[in-house]
Amino acid sequence: MNSLRTPGDKLLFTPGPLTTSATVKQAMLHDLGSRDEAFIDIVRGVRNRLLALGEVHAPEYTAVLVQGSGTYSLEAVLASTVPPDGKVLVAVNGAYGRRLVQIGKTLRIAMQTIEFREDEPVDPRLIGEALAGDRTISHVSMCHCETTSGILNPIDAVGDVVHHAGKRFFADAMSSFGAIPIDLAAAHIDYLVSSSNKCIEGVPGFAFVLARLAALESTEGWARSISLDLLAQHRGLEGNGQFRFTPPTHTILAFHQALNELDAEGGVAGRGKRYAANHAALVKGMTALGFRPYLRPDQQSFIITSFFYPDHPKFHFETFYRRLSDRGYVIYPGKVGNADCFRMGSIGRLFPEDMHNLVGAVHEVLASMDVVLMPAHQG
Amino acid sequence: MNSLRTPGDKLLFTPGPLTTSATVKQAMLHDLGSRDEAFIDIVRGVRNRLLALGEVHAPEYTAVLVQGSGTYSLEAVLASTVPPDGKVLVAVNGAYGRRLVQIGKTLRIAMQTIEFREDEPVDPRLIGEALAGDRTISHVSMCHCETTSGILNPIDAVGDVVHHAGKRFFADAMSSFGAIPIDLAAAHIDYLVSSSNKCIEGVPGFAFVLARLAALESTEGWARSISLDLLAQHRGLEGNGQFRFTPPTHTILAFHQALNELDAEGGVAGRGKRYAANHAALVKGMTALGFRPYLRPDQQSFIITSFFYPDHPKFHFETFYRRLSDRGYVIYPGKVGNADCFRMGSIGRLFPEDMHNLVGAVHEVLASMDVVLMPAHQG
Repeated sequence: MNSLRTPGDKLLFTPGPLTTSATVKQAMLHDLGSRDEAFIDIVRGVRNRLLALGEVHAPEYTAVLVQGSGTYSLEAVLASTVPPDGKVLVAVNGAYGRRLVQIGKTLRIAMQTIEFREDEPVDPRLIGEALAGDRTISHVSMCHCETTSGILNPIDAVGDVVHHAGKRFFADAMSSFGAIPIDLAAAHIDYLVSSSNKCIEGVPGFAFVLARLAALESTEGWARSISLDLLAQHRGLEGNGQFRFTPPTHTILAFHQALNELDAEGGVAGRGKRYAANHAALVKGMTALGFRPYLRPDQQSFIITSFFYPDHPKFHFETFYRRLSDRGYVIYPGKVGNADCFRMGSIGRLFPEDMHNLVGAVHEVLASMDVVLMPAHQG
Repeated sequence: MNSLRTPGDKLLFTPGPLTTSATVKQAMLHDLGSRDEAFIDIVRGVRNRLLALGEVHAPEYTAVLVQGSGTYSLEAVLASTVPPDGKVLVAVNGAYGRRLVQIGKTLRIAMQTIEFREDEPVDPRLIGEALAGDRTISHVSMCHCETTSGILNPIDAVGDVVHHAGKRFFADAMSSFGAIPIDLAAAHIDYLVSSSNKCIEGVPGFAFVLARLAALESTEGWARSISLDLLAQHRGLEGNGQFRFTPPTHTILAFHQALNELDAEGGVAGRGKRYAANHAALVKGMTALGFRPYLRPDQQSFIITSFFYPDHPKFHFETFYRRLSDRGYVIYPGKVGNADCFRMGSIGRLFPEDMHNLVGAVHEVLASMDVVLMPAHQG
């Protein structure tokens, strides 16, 4: 399996940038002109395949690639699709929900928050009550998988509630799209954001918005930015197939190859199966060592897993992190508000064997720190 | 020389994305974690080397990398550094100056334009008069090399005028930085923007702002965007060395390699010398074929050259473009307002031999179109 990756690189057990296949990176060894027919064909194909991953198709839906990180695409949706007198209700159970509120406030958009605990999924019933209580809300936004903890929110149920209230539904599926099935039409999603370097296993450089075209077309004149103007970007891509501003051509070539490899793995179902196996191997190994996951299993996605710091005086996260990194295993700090945690991702070009090896390295590093955990007492 | 490039790729005689060396692209064959010490070291090195290319240093100046295309960085400067009651005077002699005005207007910033002909450099004296006539102007912006035509504007002289008026100077050096010497301090530049895939010959994916730190530090609270918040991005990079949002790690690895190759070529002077030789070979060959440059030689940069469409009934640009592309030579449409032109770039991993070959291909394509030009009558 290692032949599929670049030898010598550390493995990334993070929410991204991720470990990608060697062939995805090799696709970047070409310089294509951004107006070249070959490149335009690739962009067209990528856009159509993204829609198909979301179980929808043109012309009812459009896939708009946006240069920059995933956050840029989130900002693009708010900056472009919320009318001047609009108000966005954000269901928050982690840092990414909170960030969206901050983005909207900076754009001087009226933002309202409905807060949930970070270890508790969003409750669609409470969203419905909030919508009933404030008729001025125009949009509802929620993370599908809150990468802060790894919790999975009920996207279909929330979409139903939003749809029945006649509001726009904006789903942040950054870390779930491509590995957890999402049917945009069934979930009544007007705007969905994800990124090149999450479950589709491309390299970072752009993100994308899947939009219901009738919704997007109704936003004329609302854009608060030129760079992040979603409707203009859509029209550019539909018009002559070109980006308005220089696209990351190499990153897009890598993404095209990544989509081929996703297909070869059996699409969303196949990818999800591998990630689920990764997650199961990780949790089994880590709990056997005495670590305790932050979330209950029924709330937990297979994307990324938060573990509590072990309750041991000699455990220092920075040392733990560095020694794992020195052994070639890069994990991720935690972000949850009410507990000391770290995170381990199961996504990217990783396999159950890698998770076993990671757990083995964790075992070694704990020993090197004189940290002895007692699994029975941690559960 | 071809061994330095990827065999089989078309050569790009454009303003970007450009032809880059094979070794620059090979630097992208690694996945680095964005919080990894190795990556943080590379980012730190890249930032310092960018300042050195502008003849300045930390802590008086800072280099802020911004994910996205060059336009994003231009918008970041406006969105972040213009106070709520500020006004930006833009010296316009091409499409990129006009685009900056459009960006500012979308951000609801007061914008004022001083227009010049597209074949006429910006006149510093008129900038001084405009500043004297409107004390509410806070910032002056100008393209160094207007890529629309390839004209070179007098950055030092304009900087002097702006400095004496006590205003901020924002230079768009997108297509010149790295090949034409710019001393930020001497030119009194507060903010300079350029991109990863222009004269430094990286691949597209980010751009950067070189900023005088005292100016940037005074902008607290003005940002109109989270993604494009320049001061926050600076503080993130200075704080823990990390980007606030996922960086294009592979693109930055390529850029690091591109900076090494710039050094090996003799820095800005060496790079400029090759581009000047490219430009000279191009103009000599094209005029010998009967094409006429849009600009007078003393106004013309060696970055990109606009040529008038030949006055011949059988010349159709789309056919000309496609046949050149089929032969492996990608040129660029023109954009000047008052004349039908096309453009040919001299930048990227191109050498005088490539320009000779391009001219040879032009000769063939003209013949295939039955277009016979008379050089003597065109001059």
